[in-house]
This record gives sequence, structure tokens and C-alpha cells, in this order.
Amino acid sequence: MTASTRMAHEIAEGPHALERTLADLLPLRAELRARAAGRRRVLFAARGTSDNAAVYGRYLLETQAGIGTALAAPSVATHYAVAQDLSDALVVSVSQSGATREIVDYQEWARTQGAATVAVTNVAGSELAERADVALVTGAGPEVAVPATKTYLAQLAAMGVLASALSPDPVVLEEPLLRSVGEVSRLLAERRGVSELAAALAEAATVVVSGRGVVLGTALEIALKLEETCLRPVRGYSYADLRHGPVSVVGDDTTAVLVSAPDGPFAPAMAQLAADLRGRGARVLGIGGDDAFAAACDLVVPGPRLPEAVAPLGLVVPAQLAVEESARLLGLDPDAPRSLAKVTQTD
Amino acid sequence: MTASTRMAHEIAEGPHALERTLADLLPLRAELRARAAGRRRVLFAARGTSDNAAVYGRYLLETQAGIGTALAAPSVATHYAVAQDLSDALVVSVSQSGATREIVDYQEWARTQGAATVAVTNVAGSELAERADVALVTGAGPEVAVPATKTYLAQLAAMGVLASALSPDPVVLEEPLLRSVGEVSRLLAERRGVSELAAALAEAATVVVSGRGVVLGTALEIALKLEETCLRPVRGYSYADLRHGPVSVVGDDTTAVLVSAPDGPFAPAMAQLAADLRGRGARVLGIGGDDAFAAACDLVVPGPRLPEAVAPLGLVVPAQLAVEESARLLGLDPDAPRSLAKVTQTD
Repeated sequence: MTASTRMAHEIAEGPHALERTLADLLPLRAELRARAAGRRRVLFAARGTSDNAAVYGRYLLETQAGIGTALAAPSVATHYAVAQDLSDALVVSVSQSGATREIVDYQEWARTQGAATVAVTNVAGSELAERADVALVTGAGPEVAVPATKTYLAQLAAMGVLASALSPDPVVLEEPLLRSVGEVSRLLAERRGVSELAAALAEAATVVVSGRGVVLGTALEIALKLEETCLRPVRGYSYADLRHGPVSVVGDDTTAVLVSAPDGPFAPAMAQLAADLRGRGARVLGIGGDDAFAAACDLVVPGPRLPEAVAPLGLVVPAQLAVEESARLLGLDPDAPRSLAKVTQTD
Repeated sequence: MTASTRMAHEIAEGPHALERTLADLLPLRAELRARAAGRRRVLFAARGTSDNAAVYGRYLLETQAGIGTALAAPSVATHYAVAQDLSDALVVSVSQSGATREIVDYQEWARTQGAATVAVTNVAGSELAERADVALVTGAGPEVAVPATKTYLAQLAAMGVLASALSPDPVVLEEPLLRSVGEVSRLLAERRGVSELAAALAEAATVVVSGRGVVLGTALEIALKLEETCLRPVRGYSYADLRHGPVSVVGDDTTAVLVSAPDGPFAPAMAQLAADLRGRGARVLGIGGDDAFAAACDLVVPGPRLPEAVAPLGLVVPAQLAVEESARLLGLDPDAPRSLAKVTQTD
């Protein structure tokens, strides 16, 4: 199924967005290291799709750089206006537009509390970029469709650069990051399993999406994209939270989308989860994973040949393609979902 | 509608659980202060209902004690086994049973990384309690029904004690905490609006629950309780995340449960959200809030007469009553939802 939507064009620009972002940002690693010197923790401030990129950044920094990392609650600054000593913190604010008021205000508050600040944004000259100590401006180019796709990939690349900069050995991440460009190109060209996934999503009643660890952010992003583009309630769960209660609502009217890296500590657990959910009657659609995972799913879409730490840069791509196609199958316009604006604001 | 389920009995024991927990734990504040001395940040480790209590604890500590607080990703310890310097951190592990392996293991890992440790558990002598520097053992008594109710209240009281201990002026929180016992008793005796809320929930198709700031954890807990007890997918959203995308799926088949404190920076925003969601065709069921909030909802259940910081101890109670009643209206057994065990484990 070919497409001429803006969303489809922008998904196709993913490799270029990755390549340019890596070329622009990898040289900034020395500056990032200098700014982070003496800082003992990292705080991410973000909303929506950017928040899903931050969830990836959080696991990547904790597992690759060994730095305590957390997601900030922006309202602590914007509405409660408390004082906190952030002289030990590096605050990373993520906003595609660089204009989300709440995130700009959070960054300003963090600076006054002593934090060093890094902005991740796709818009050079935006307020977020201008007011940060270091601006990581992603090279995705203008994005017109409301659902973020190539800019999300570029944000993931920025997270990879940040983790590489703060890791003991920056080269460990650099090699697979550079290789991700070709892997995304390959996934886009092959589109293996994408139309089958799109058809299954279009006819799904209740959808849950799950992933774990470094891949959790990917699961949350797929859930958000499916929800905002195909206009149906979709739940993104961590593996652990799903096991701790919501699994009780999984039944034969459930479609479960499971995302897994090809390796890492959770690949076997994700294969087991696929088998368990099928045992409850759910239809299980897999993205990525290993051979055992593929065998346990009703349908599997191949992921990238990348190690777990960088796999999210490729894993989201077949899902982006399938969401775009699924929206059209449902007679919806993927470029302009109901009720959503491109620059998000929270009052 | 009277009930003889275990869940109903345990909800009714809420005031006693609160009273005993406060009596047992308030005297431990000096010890908590001593253990926290020199620690610059607090990390919560928890899953499920305990995680919702931790979300409350996080906002309470940040807004009342001005301490940077975050939710830990336990898998960083249990599966990735990375090294992190936690010598500047106080780690608070929350588990009703004190036996959730993942949380016990996280606490042990945190100790080896230099953290001071506090356990919040309902079981004296549990592994989590025995191995912590300070054990905050809640006084809820044994809980038999699978859905946690009185133990959740007791966990919130423990969060209040912790925030009081680490605040510049411990008395600010102590007074409303002690007053919450009587407020919960009053809400239980009056049951105002509870049967109407239960009936509306029983006939709801798509349910979203939202709250913000200090009350966010309450919204997440109501969503989880409704999902695990009434066996239907329910989404808990922060106000901000709902505004940033998922609002697009709110329509005339949506039932929105909104939870609001009677005061604080978000009371006006929650009234506005109620009006907006009604404008999209949703049926809006309110819990708590101010007069403007009540006027904007289709149905409102009164909350406690407590300031925002402590309001969550009362706000969840009418929801617990309504969930229990709603499950029975649906012909389900609230004491033993499908697929769930009392002591949760994550592999």
C-alpha cells in the first residue's frame, strides 16, 4: 500500500534525520562532558513524544553511563514553584518545537536552582535552545504532520550522543549509532510484515503495548502514536506493571503489541510474555526480538540488527509505518488527527 | 447497597489503619531525619499500588520538603546490574508484603551502592523491613482481599510521616495528617454519591482517570483499582499527558473520572478540564474539587476537608467504595479478581 501523506514522507526521511543529527551532535560530546563535570544526576523534562524519547534516554544513561537519571515533574517548578538545590544536577529538556512553555519555564527554573542545562530540540534559535548551556539541535528538518516520526528518531539519536558523551568509553555507543542509519533505511525499504501489522491494528478492539528496560520508551511511543493517529484508546505498559495487575484484563478481545530487542537481559522474558498473553487468548503482534520471541507471537515484524542499547532507533520504524497505514485503513487522516496541535502546551 | 465482601470490610478499616500507622510512625521522625542527613535526593522503588503511593510521596517530598525525588527503575539494578554511586541518596522501598523479590533486591543493590535505605511495608519482620536502615511498618493489619485498600491508605500515611520528617517545619503536615482519620471516617459513614458513581462506572465503556500534581497518584490508583477489580481497561493519565495527545480519543463513549483537591494550584485547571471533556461529549464523574469543579461535572462525589497536600488520604476512599460496589453490580467478586495474586512478583 503506497501513501502520499505527509506522515509517510516524514517517516521516509528518518535515515536522513538520523544521519544529520549524528553528524551535527557527535562533535559536541567534549562540550557535553565538560558541562556535566561534577554533576551527579541527570533530570529529563519533557511531555508526550519527547517524554518517550526521555524514557529511552533515562535507561540509556543509567545502563551505559552509570549515572542516576530521572524524569522530572515539571509542575514542581511551574505550579508549586518550590526551591530545590540542583547544583548537583544536569537538566535535559526535550521539546521538538523548543517552544513548549512548560518545558521552557522548567529549564529556566532549573537554571536558577543551580542546574547545568541541555536542550534537545529540532528548532535552532528556539527559546529552549537559546537559553540552554548546550543546545543539541536535531537535524530532522521541518516536520509538518502532527504525529512526530522523524523528529522522534532524531531525539533518540540525541539521547545516544548524550549517553556516549557521558560514558567511560564513548566508542561503545558510537559504532551502533552510526550503523542505525543503514538499518533504518533497510527496514523502510523492506517493509516486511508492515501491512499485516497495519491490518491487525486496524481491526483490533482493545490494544495494549508493552516493552521493558531500554525498549520501554519504544512501547510507550508506539502506544501514543497509535492512540493519537488511529483515535482509539491504547495502553502502553512496562512489562512489570502489566504483570502487576492489568494482565487481568487481557483476554480474547485483546491485541497485544510487544516490542523486544534481539538481545539483552529481557529478550527471554519478552518471549515468555508473548506466550503467556497468547495463553490468555490475546492476539500477539511482535516487533523485533529473538527467534523464541518470533515463535511465540501470532505475527512478528523484524526489527533492526542492532544491540539492545541502540535497538530503539530501529524498532519504532515498522510501527510508525504500520500506524500510518492503519489510520488510512480506518479512513482517518494520519497527518492531522482530531484535536491535536503540533506545538503542544500545558496550562 | 450493603456488602459483606472482604474488600468492603477492609475499606471500612481505613480510619483505624491510618490512626495506628500515624501513632506508630510519627515518633520515628527524628530517626528518619538522622538517616537522611547529608542525602541530597530520594529514590522510590515500588510496583503497582505501592508505586501509586510512591507517586504521592514523590510530589509530597518535592513540594513540602524541597528534596529532589524520583521513581527508580528497578531493572537497572535487578537486570542490568550496573554500578551507580548512591552515596548521596535515600532509597525508599515500598511493598505491602515486604516480600516482592524485585523490590527487596533493589534495596540490597542500593545499599551496596552507598544509599541509606527506608522500607515501607505492612509486614513486620518481612525481608524488606529486616534489611532496611529504617523500617516504616504500617499498621493496617492483615489484608486478605487481593485489591489493596486499607494498606494503600496506610502507605500514604507513611509518605506523610516521611515528608513531615524531612520538612523544615514538621508540624505543617502533622496537623492535617492527624485530622485525616476523622475525615475518612466521615466519608465512609456518609457514602455521599458513592452508589451513583458505582452505577456510572459499571455501565461505562471507555474510562479515563486523571488528576495532577499531588493528586496524580490518586488518579493512577483509582485507574488501577478499577481495572483489576472490574476487569476493564482503564487509563490513568496525568492532566498534562492527557492534554498532550490522548485527549483526541475522548468522545461521547468516554467516561472520565477526574480527581481534584479542594484547593492548591490545580483546582481551577481541573474544573476547566471537566468542562472541556464534557464539551467533547464525555460523561464526567468528579471526586473532590471546589465549587467550580462540582458545577462542571455531570456527577460529583464530595472529597475530604483536607488541604491539597493531605487530600489524597481521603480522596481515594469514595473511589474504593465505588469500585467495590461496581464490581458487584457487574457480577464480579471484588475480593479475588481474575489472574491476580496478593504478593506480586516480577521476573
